[in-house]
Amino acid sequence: MYCYLNGDIIPTEQGSLQLNDLSLLRGYGMFDYFRTYNGVPFEFDSYWQRFTKSAAMMRLPVAISKTDAEAILAELYQRVQQPDIAYRFILTGGYSPDSVSMIQPNLIIKAENLPKDNPEGRTRGIKVMPFEFVRDMPEIKTTNYLHMIRLAHEMQAQGAADLMYHKDGLVSELTRSNFFIFKGNTLVTPNANILHGITRRVVLELAEEAFAVEIRPLHVQELAEATEAFTTSSTKWVMPIVQIGRQKIGDGKPGKNSLRLLERFDEKVAGYGK
Amino acid sequence: MYCYLNGDIIPTEQGSLQLNDLSLLRGYGMFDYFRTYNGVPFEFDSYWQRFTKSAAMMRLPVAISKTDAEAILAELYQRVQQPDIAYRFILTGGYSPDSVSMIQPNLIIKAENLPKDNPEGRTRGIKVMPFEFVRDMPEIKTTNYLHMIRLAHEMQAQGAADLMYHKDGLVSELTRSNFFIFKGNTLVTPNANILHGITRRVVLELAEEAFAVEIRPLHVQELAEATEAFTTSSTKWVMPIVQIGRQKIGDGKPGKNSLRLLERFDEKVAGYGK
Repeated sequence: MYCYLNGDIIPTEQGSLQLNDLSLLRGYGMFDYFRTYNGVPFEFDSYWQRFTKSAAMMRLPVAISKTDAEAILAELYQRVQQPDIAYRFILTGGYSPDSVSMIQPNLIIKAENLPKDNPEGRTRGIKVMPFEFVRDMPEIKTTNYLHMIRLAHEMQAQGAADLMYHKDGLVSELTRSNFFIFKGNTLVTPNANILHGITRRVVLELAEEAFAVEIRPLHVQELAEATEAFTTSSTKWVMPIVQIGRQKIGDGKPGKNSLRLLERFDEKVAGYGK
Repeated sequence: MYCYLNGDIIPTEQGSLQLNDLSLLRGYGMFDYFRTYNGVPFEFDSYWQRFTKSAAMMRLPVAISKTDAEAILAELYQRVQQPDIAYRFILTGGYSPDSVSMIQPNLIIKAENLPKDNPEGRTRGIKVMPFEFVRDMPEIKTTNYLHMIRLAHEMQAQGAADLMYHKDGLVSELTRSNFFIFKGNTLVTPNANILHGITRRVVLELAEEAFAVEIRPLHVQELAEATEAFTTSSTKWVMPIVQIGRQKIGDGKPGKNSLRLLERFDEKVAGYGK
């Protein structure tokens, strides 16, 4: 695999950061992540916009333009020689002389293998574990994933694929993906304390054609009334959720409306860039 | 400067981490930081205990024993050839094959120059900026210092040296140090949502001899009644706070009780290890 690191394209295993980077010392970093379909970066305009907006909120200058970024993505794609890949942008606070001051960010763009697909998850649905938490600055894709990593064993022990964050009675999101429920033919997804996922937006656009859509605070108690639930991300697409903690959703199987959205999403990406 | 990195002692500028370390990808890291007096690590037993306890809470195995650690500290001290230095322990989630799974932590112990002393701060006192926030898992010294770095410019513009965190009407701590007020001869410091500082503990022990001590929830409104305020950390010792946002504390000068504690602390460390 290859990556871009502050101006150079190099084999990823040769890349490294010094021990005074603020991501290591102070957790000061952000990232974005997306994939190609048919070799074309999916919805790159949206990802670039989110990345640069988040960078500005973290006061991190981005040293390259969108055109530069597109050229880097194209070169990485050519080197990797795979039909489809994922890209990870990482921007850190950079090397600090005193473990506090920011001088110049470090910018990394990694080409990565696509994560192992989970077709069984889509057929059978996944279980998630409720966890009381709300991300700090949820609209920014910071690199703070403390609980996801820390609670990996508990999740495994419970057969859960992820955490579902809730706080003050409101559901927000999973650790790396957005959350939706169906009440009959009405789709509901939280409006606040979330990362505004690109796949979320695409799925909402697809949903509007067939369902009533409510983007609003989602109360934990409403989960009991959900007939279906699912989560969306760039690599999970529309992933049915059939159990939240001890609570079964609907009949405990992926719901027909969720599967219909998954089908529509499949169609969209199958032809993407062609 | 020198550091220990997973078993080797090397010049720090030669040390690096690969681009799949979970501190970079997921902000998954913790640390501890302390200094020597007269060449002897100050209160190392307490720091080691806190470090290993935090590591356990983050499910990060520590590959070395306390005896190993002491030998590493001694070797680093010998190489650096300075009368006094600081040590920074850093433990990360390690290199991850899939950006999520933990395999083996990376352990770094850096010898560092002591930060530039701030005698003017102790003479004139510092200003801090109130900020509504409570750290996630505050009892663990994670590497998440988002707001401290992000708001550096605002602090500079306001002439503030640090942020004072408060949430739901309660004061907790500064970004890297503990918080105290005096109401006359009664010392008050928050009991919860804080990192249990070693300097905090030492100062509380020194205070007991001369003052009434209350360790309890500290309400934001009480700041108006404070006759003095100060913060403690391993490198700030007892640093008087004379202004919080727009609010002057007492007569806007370092308080006599705070300075008395500073003097007692000075005496303690002056003879440390001798």
